[in-house]
Amino acid sequence: MRVLIYHNDAEQWRNILLERLPDAEIQVAAGSGNPQVDYLVAWKPPASVFDEQTALKGIVNLGAGVDALLQNPSLPRGIPIVKLRDAGMGELIGDYARYGVLHFQRDFDRYRRQQANSEWREVAVVDKPDWPVGVLGLGAIGTRVAQMLAADGYPIHGWSRSPKQLEGITCHHGDHGLDTLLRQVKTLITLLPDTPATRHIIDRGNLAKLPAGASLINPGRGTLIDEPALLDALGEAESEGRLRGALLDAFPSEPLAADSPLWRHPRILITPHMAGPTPIGAAADQVADALDAMSKGKAVETVDPDAGY
Amino acid sequence: MRVLIYHNDAEQWRNILLERLPDAEIQVAAGSGNPQVDYLVAWKPPASVFDEQTALKGIVNLGAGVDALLQNPSLPRGIPIVKLRDAGMGELIGDYARYGVLHFQRDFDRYRRQQANSEWREVAVVDKPDWPVGVLGLGAIGTRVAQMLAADGYPIHGWSRSPKQLEGITCHHGDHGLDTLLRQVKTLITLLPDTPATRHIIDRGNLAKLPAGASLINPGRGTLIDEPALLDALGEAESEGRLRGALLDAFPSEPLAADSPLWRHPRILITPHMAGPTPIGAAADQVADALDAMSKGKAVETVDPDAGY
Repeated sequence: MRVLIYHNDAEQWRNILLERLPDAEIQVAAGSGNPQVDYLVAWKPPASVFDEQTALKGIVNLGAGVDALLQNPSLPRGIPIVKLRDAGMGELIGDYARYGVLHFQRDFDRYRRQQANSEWREVAVVDKPDWPVGVLGLGAIGTRVAQMLAADGYPIHGWSRSPKQLEGITCHHGDHGLDTLLRQVKTLITLLPDTPATRHIIDRGNLAKLPAGASLINPGRGTLIDEPALLDALGEAESEGRLRGALLDAFPSEPLAADSPLWRHPRILITPHMAGPTPIGAAADQVADALDAMSKGKAVETVDPDAGY
Repeated sequence: MRVLIYHNDAEQWRNILLERLPDAEIQVAAGSGNPQVDYLVAWKPPASVFDEQTALKGIVNLGAGVDALLQNPSLPRGIPIVKLRDAGMGELIGDYARYGVLHFQRDFDRYRRQQANSEWREVAVVDKPDWPVGVLGLGAIGTRVAQMLAADGYPIHGWSRSPKQLEGITCHHGDHGLDTLLRQVKTLITLLPDTPATRHIIDRGNLAKLPAGASLINPGRGTLIDEPALLDALGEAESEGRLRGALLDAFPSEPLAADSPLWRHPRILITPHMAGPTPIGAAADQVADALDAMSKGKAVETVDPDAGY
């Protein structure tokens, strides 16, 4: 089988895939003049990569988010797309979420502000059983994050478009379920895919449903959040608004522009899309398995371009 | 039995103990003129409380740390002292430690400094299996913290004065064991009691044994740390010194003085002794059990004043 790799670390991917698929012809994509291949393994490839390929049999997306790929104007139709599923990312994002929940539940945000004023004042702790957390999105990663936080002792409410049942998680679905969830969580974690239906799902209306003093963690997609609405809910500088604080890892345009007001807001923590880096070994196993299965005509779990994930 | 309570929230303690010991005569301590009682239930009582009591049969210390009590000049000799053991405190302190370890392992300290400069730069994550954590002190709380972090996926090294064996923890003991532990941990957590042997155990010499870039979390006792040595190891302001950062909850004198240089150091996080508040219900069960056992002449686990814990 012939494979083309488009990725910042394409050479590293080539080596690690050759260990798993020693008989494959694996090439690193150049700017143009690439050979015809059977499979493309790529993260956010430009349209030109697709324009050259006339006989692709399958695509492996080197991440869990396929929004950029599906928006590529030259993406061929009708070809199977396999995306990385939780390849250690779930636990990494779970730890990110755990840090964020503790940041608010144990008042580290408040102590940080007190420290700036040399102020020594203990805040009474709200115990974990009294700190319900909402997880929007119950794919492989959302489910893992929900289960990790449930094991930590927080009551967890999960939400997905269609009904799900998960042990230890109170599952909600549909518009009414979203409403029910939002009205009772102290921290909201957004792990939905970027689709037309989820774009700006965290808007003025939904932010207003959260209890006063709730907090937001977004390790998912930047497009989920209506940023002006978020800033309004946070309110001004030092005093806590309706929304107490936010920990944000994803933004509609990355890197986040240096003049974005998000950087400067004292109750927003910004991280540079680091919540869920792909551990390359586990991811390479998935890529090799997908290529091997597709080349042998075996069934693989593929992305639904109409659903967007 | 007659019981005197000395505590900031003495009235609350009286009510919750009366539920458990309905036949006891329980009084809240006044400044002076208190009646003679059999048992004192107290947190940091002044010498005058002991000066009035001539027939105490036992003392219950309303916390895990007995250093203040043992230093009380009027503490009567030869009377059994029972202290609170891990009464939910272990999990609370475990969550505090978990937040601190994630703060450094996942580079939240660096991202915070980058945010101040609107700087978007991802740091390669060091995975949990490559992030050894040291826990000094393997009493009930230290053991619980060590086990929680081991379950999270960090390799854990524990240290105690005398040999211990704990499943899933690499246990060290004695001076040589301390040396071995310090030389290999990326984050050090201090959970030792305050005794003459542990005072300033984190001094220049021991700080110098930590690998470059290590971090320190102290949810234990303020006296464990030699503060000038800590500040020297942290180095100046923005650039990371030998010691990368510290999360401190306990100080030799509390509240921390407003002019302490610790407040202002950009790589120190200060919290106001909030890591392990006593959950009152679980603690009240322990107090009631201890009073009941002592009044019936049954065996109770007591503090060793010479060892200091």
